Amino acid sequence: MKKLEELYRGKAKKVYYTDDKDILWLEYTDALTAGDGDKVGSEQDKGKLNNKISALLFDYLKEQNVDNHFVKQISDNEMLVKKVEILPVEVVIRNYAAGSICRRLGLEQKMEMPFPLVEFFYKNDDLKDPLINKEHIKLMNLATEQQVEKMEEISLKVNEILKQLFDDINVVLVDYKLEFGVTNDGKLILSDEISPDTCRLWDKETLESLDKDIFRQDKGSVMDKYTEIYDRIKGRLN
Amino acid sequence: MKKLEELYRGKAKKVYYTDDKDILWLEYTDALTAGDGDKVGSEQDKGKLNNKISALLFDYLKEQNVDNHFVKQISDNEMLVKKVEILPVEVVIRNYAAGSICRRLGLEQKMEMPFPLVEFFYKNDDLKDPLINKEHIKLMNLATEQQVEKMEEISLKVNEILKQLFDDINVVLVDYKLEFGVTNDGKLILSDEISPDTCRLWDKETLESLDKDIFRQDKGSVMDKYTEIYDRIKGRLN
Ligand SMILES: Nc1ncnc2c1ncn2[C@@H]1O[C@H](COP(=O)(O)OP(=O)(O)O)[C@@H](O)[C@H]1O
Ligand SMILES: Nc1ncnc2c1ncn2[C@@H]1O[C@H](COP(=O)(O)OP(=O)(O)O)[C@@H](O)[C@H]1O
Ligand SMILES: [Mg+2]
Ligand SMILES: [Mg+2]
Repeated sequence: MKKLEELYRGKAKKVYYTDDKDILWLEYTDALTAGDGDKVGSEQDKGKLNNKISALLFDYLKEQNVDNHFVKQISDNEMLVKKVEILPVEVVIRNYAAGSICRRLGLEQKMEMPFPLVEFFYKNDDLKDPLINKEHIKLMNLATEQQVEKMEEISLKVNEILKQLFDDINVVLVDYKLEFGVTNDGKLILSDEISPDTCRLWDKETLESLDKDIFRQDKGSVMDKYTEIYDRIKGRLN
Repeated sequence: MKKLEELYRGKAKKVYYTDDKDILWLEYTDALTAGDGDKVGSEQDKGKLNNKISALLFDYLKEQNVDNHFVKQISDNEMLVKKVEILPVEVVIRNYAAGSICRRLGLEQKMEMPFPLVEFFYKNDDLKDPLINKEHIKLMNLATEQQVEKMEEISLKVNEILKQLFDDINVVLVDYKLEFGVTNDGKLILSDEISPDTCRLWDKETLESLDKDIFRQDKGSVMDKYTEIYDRIKGRLN
């Protein structure tokens, strides 16, 4: 497989074409951003950890029959993925209240949700990814009604699988953001990344953050915690 | 009917008990607020116009079989209403894009919606009435699922009726906010007010604002325009 020209680059990954029109080459960078890009930083080798964690999780999800874009890890910070047209809708699933939703709705931090809460956000950096509902998705043609139902269904299935996986390694899956895309042959699949950059993860005993909140809240280096997450998942899955 | 002690007062109305436990006494005040209370003002006799406009509209809606809290106008700025427990959910219906939704989602001002867009907001001044979805309503127990369906259904019926009524008097019903409440005998009904304070109304020919946007945007006195709205509705309904 040959890496060709860049397709686009985002806040944490670069995306390249390959000589296979159905496959893209993802490079995870060391950049860290928070507050819709207001706060920026980086930590050496962070990209490697997110790439390796995403690879493990996507692989595991595939085993559990959740089809996704992951094809193969090709280096510490690179993977091949199925090329998709990303739908501009971010799906957030929350098992506990933390972060923005507490400020937004006056919820108590760390409150357990009585059911996995599903939220949709419009993936649009200029607008700072605003919260939307199904009517807004229809209005702006961001996804079809069937795609919305499918995203919701897959997100909840992913939740069951990952909540259990993290529980097994003494980690609370607090919340996370998923992205979906449509492949060249029209199939909606889970895409993007699943990593401590895109999930809130707490140690089950201490409730300390093992995720990007360390960066958001200026609590030091993320590397030890991301390494800890990688090691625990790796230990569980091997 | 006797007016008894104050139950509560809001940003634009005072609410009193009466000697009938099922009936409240609403007094429309002259206060104007915008931006979730950040901007405040008042205009003499504004309350009278809103009271009289609300009375006409609620009465007309009742004729069209939309049950609501309105009982009887008792003075220029006072009406009797059925006492309800207001659900802390504001329902906004939009026929055209204007105001906050344009900033929020990057929509073009004055864009016609392909269908009446329904949005829910959490009625909570401290949190500045945040946008919510049905899952948030369930999470916070703001209303039951049946109540949500009913509010949506009634709101869309109100939309058909009022869009036509305003069209008849050369006014575009751009958007509006409704509140619902539960009566002492457990019935969900349309409540609060329907006035140029709670609707966006444009002249059909000139597209000029005949509503609280005049105050929001510092475009002079609202009184002429509110009077114009009252006169046109009155002319159509008599
Ligand atoms: N399989 C895929 N095919 C095409 N694009 C993808 C795929 N997976 C992820 N992407 C997109 O790659 C871009 C770069 O990722 P990232 O740096 O995380 O961007 P962002 O700044 O949007 O968070 C994003 O737009 C993401 O949606
Ligand atoms: N029929 C009713 N029974 C009880 N309360 C009502 C009724 N109609 C309206 N209210 C409530 O009266 C209060 C005063 O109205 P308003 O001044 O518009 O308040 P706000 O500041 O919340 O906009 C509001 O909380 C409104 O929901
Ligand atoms: Mg991203
Ligand atoms: Mg009000």
